[in-house]
Parts: sequence; C-alpha cells; structure tokens
Amino acid sequence: MNNIQVIKIGGNVVDNPLLLEQFIRDFSGLDGPKVLVHGGGVMASQMQKRLGQQPVMIDGRRVTDTDTLKVVTMVYAGWCSKSIVALLQKHGCNAVGLSGADADLIRATRRPPVRKAGQADGETVTIDYGYVGDVDPHMINAGFLYRLTDAGITPVICAITHDGNGSLLNTNADTIASSVAVSLASYIKEGIRAESLSSGKPAELPEVSLIYCFEKDGVLYDKDDDNSVIPGITPEYYSRLKREGRVAAGMIPKLDNAFNALENGVKEVVIKHAGNLGNGIGTVLSL
Amino acid sequence: MNNIQVIKIGGNVVDNPLLLEQFIRDFSGLDGPKVLVHGGGVMASQMQKRLGQQPVMIDGRRVTDTDTLKVVTMVYAGWCSKSIVALLQKHGCNAVGLSGADADLIRATRRPPVRKAGQADGETVTIDYGYVGDVDPHMINAGFLYRLTDAGITPVICAITHDGNGSLLNTNADTIASSVAVSLASYIKEGIRAESLSSGKPAELPEVSLIYCFEKDGVLYDKDDDNSVIPGITPEYYSRLKREGRVAAGMIPKLDNAFNALENGVKEVVIKHAGNLGNGIGTVLSL
Repeated sequence: MNNIQVIKIGGNVVDNPLLLEQFIRDFSGLDGPKVLVHGGGVMASQMQKRLGQQPVMIDGRRVTDTDTLKVVTMVYAGWCSKSIVALLQKHGCNAVGLSGADADLIRATRRPPVRKAGQADGETVTIDYGYVGDVDPHMINAGFLYRLTDAGITPVICAITHDGNGSLLNTNADTIASSVAVSLASYIKEGIRAESLSSGKPAELPEVSLIYCFEKDGVLYDKDDDNSVIPGITPEYYSRLKREGRVAAGMIPKLDNAFNALENGVKEVVIKHAGNLGNGIGTVLSL
Repeated sequence: MNNIQVIKIGGNVVDNPLLLEQFIRDFSGLDGPKVLVHGGGVMASQMQKRLGQQPVMIDGRRVTDTDTLKVVTMVYAGWCSKSIVALLQKHGCNAVGLSGADADLIRATRRPPVRKAGQADGETVTIDYGYVGDVDPHMINAGFLYRLTDAGITPVICAITHDGNGSLLNTNADTIASSVAVSLASYIKEGIRAESLSSGKPAELPEVSLIYCFEKDGVLYDKDDDNSVIPGITPEYYSRLKREGRVAAGMIPKLDNAFNALENGVKEVVIKHAGNLGNGIGTVLSL
C-alpha cells in the first residue's frame, strides 16, 4: 500500500482556470492514493454579490445565514466540486466529489455564538457565525475514504459539512484537510494494524502526508520577498518566527492546523504553490 | 439480495419543503437497496431569473448555454443534492449525492444542433440546445452503483452528466432514471449471473423496479379528473390511449421511457404521487 496524500487547494486556485487545469493535470499524474480538498471562497463571494448579498467575514470566517448557506453549498458542492471532478475524469483520474453529508463523511457541530472584545475599551460583542460548523477528526468517516482510495477512486471534498440533523454547515477547508489527514492516519494505525495482527501477517502501514497548495511558493521569511521561502519549519522555529512577528496573520491558522496534524499522526506537511505540485519547491513542516 | 428500487422525484417535489420531508421519511423507511434520482428544474428557473437570465425551454428541454450550465450544476448537484442527502442522513438513510461525472457514473454525448419545422409553412429552424447531454444505458457505471447499494449506501443522482472531456452536461432526469434502472438490470443479469455460475452456486437474481414520483396520483384517464387514475397500462393499451388522445403531452416522454425500460430488463415501472410512496396507489406499467 502506497502512502496517502491529502492535498488542499484554495479558492484562488479553483477560480483561476489556467492554474486549475495545470494543477489538475499534475494532481492526476501523482502516483498512489490521494484525496483532494478544495475551497471556493472567491467564487462564493462573487455569487453572493450577484444575488444582492453582502459577504460578511470576521477573522477570515464567512458569517453564514440561510441565504449564504445556500450560495456556498451551490458554489462549493455544485459548481466547484463537479467542475473539478469533470476535469479529473478528463485527465484519467477517477474521482468522486463529496460534501461532509455524503456517506456521513464529516459531521460537524454548529458553532455557538462567541463573545469577543469590541472596538471600545472594555466593550464585548457577541458574534453569531450562523451555519458554520466546527469539525474534529473523530467525526470523520475515514473508512469510507480509505475504501474509495483502495478502489482507485479519488475523493474530492468540499468545505460543506452537516450536523446529522438535516442541516448543512459551512466549514473551513484548511481544517477539513488537516482533520481528514489525521483521521486517515488514525484509521490506518488502528484499523489496518488490527487486521494485519489478527491475520498474523505484519503489514507495512501507509503514511499520510498533507499538502497545502496556495498562491505563494511556501512560507515566506519576509512577506514582501517571494524569494524568501523557508525550506523547513519545526515547532521550535515556528515559535521563534511568531515571536519575531515573521508569520503573516493569515498563515497562523494554517500553520497551527499543520502542526496539530503532525502531532496527531500525520507524517509530513508541505506548504507550496499550486503550480509546483510536481516539484520539490515549498516549505516542509515536521516535528 | 433484495430487489433494487430506482425512484425518481421531480423538481416540484424538491422545491416543496413539506412534501420533500415527507417523501424523504417514506423513502428512508423503504427496505432493501434503492437509488434516488432527482430533478430541480423549478429552483433552477428561479435561480436563473434571480441572476438576470431568461430560462428558455423547447419541447420541455432547457436550452443550456455556459451561464445556464453553471446555474443548473449549482442548483442540482449543489443545493438540491446536498439538502436531500442531509435530510436522508437525518432519517437514518446513509446516502451519497452524485452527478454523472462522479466515478464516471454517467457519460453523455452533447446533443448536436437539430433541424425542426418552423412556424411558417415549409420553414425549418436549427435548434442548438447547448450543453445538453444524451445518455444511453451502456454509458453508465452500474458496477459502482451496485457496490454502493451492496455496502448499504443509497446513491442520490442529479441530472448533471459529463462528456469525459471535461464538460458537464445538463440531462433529463426521467431519462437518467430509466437508463440507471436498465443498466442495473443488465449489470445484475450479466455480472452477478456470471459470478454465480463460476462459483457453482446458483444465485437468486435481484430484480430492478423503477418508480416515477410526481404531483399526481398516477396516469389519468381524464386529465381534468384527478380521480381517474389508470391502475395498469400495457403497451397495447398505451397505443390505444395515445390514439384516443388520452395521454397528456408531458406524460408521453415519461411513458416512452418507462416502456423502453421494461423492454430492456426492468421488472416493473410505477407512476405515482410523491406523497404515496408507502402505499399502493398509482399506475403500474408492465409488458
């Protein structure tokens, strides 16, 4: 059994036809089992505006009322997912587009309203993100994903989950990618090892790696210098980078997710440009 | 192995929250393997209008330019498919929402422009339906559907197919339902019978039935009298009904599809109200 790669692309890639086609070609050419997780936020915001809605983002998360939920489901699970799958089929990669509701793949909990510091001194405000779901790796049907990859089918997962009670939920795609990677690593360790022990045949266990693709070549040491890609980051080095204010605010949740995945059984996390899938350029995170 | 039921609901059901919830509850309660095929045309037309597009229908088929393809994919494969799957999960039915691109499930051919008689005497016009796909039962991955149902997972199929070359195609949901039923019947006959012969164990082969659910109690003898449901129709009786002008124009493609399915291995076709899934009211078609 080959190692499993969980690869995430953001809305900027999905919304760029040339970059997407190149990425899909490279992705289709990768050997071994793989899972694709995709965003679609750029298109969702465009569609919200065309429908007269004003996208509201707080700390990078989209406030999701009923109308917004309909738009993100249409865009992520509809247009983005099926366009990607059709392109993968064209390039010979047999894929299935899934939301978290499909096969009860990712069950999430609707985020309760949170109290945050307001703008005035001592003021607090309550923020209700609406139909936004928080997921943990224990709520993922990794067995279904594993059986699909084992049958040569590539799961393509969008950032829509469900609560098990009939509601869809808008969920961060970076978190989905790391949770899927962690749950696959855990499923392999528990499930497959138990199987190989009971059969008396020791199996070589596949490892899971997680690759975040975005529009930069990796994590930059100087955010204004695209040539300052950091080749490798350990937890200690990450702490120092944060202390020195070297990590862009938008990168912190991604890196936190990444180290969390490494601490929970994922072998390697790589952050790289979507156009560089096939080569070695990027930032490798390891413990 | 239980018989497999392929059940189709139209856009009028999908667009009616109360009827849909009742239908989903009844559907979830059905024993044995089942496949759901759904439309969504009412919502697609509404969304087209909200986006400033004018839906164009010719002979009941939607002319599908690039913008329309995006809308129908968002509505059918996104909102309708995932809302239905989330409801099924709520009612304990483990389901997966699929388009024809997923797992190369339904590959279709883009319909070439057709010449038709125009309004003036002797005039002909060319109609290009755009991204509309025609499907035949040989282009369906029935093995994938069979394995899903065998694993206790209910496939939920929307009316979007693909051409294998990266394009999605808008496809008639009635035709998808009958083609899926025919391909499953054929897969069972060829695949499972071969398997049982080679193993020396004669297997009892499951039969496939096809159920069209819509907003009437069945095929009406008098289209203005909802109490005139015809209990059963044979091909001979169908010919007579057509000769006498008793069949509403909109029913003819549905009935043609149905008899075509019966002639190609499907055991039984039933046409009934979406609210009557659990009881015997309806029109049964048989050879």
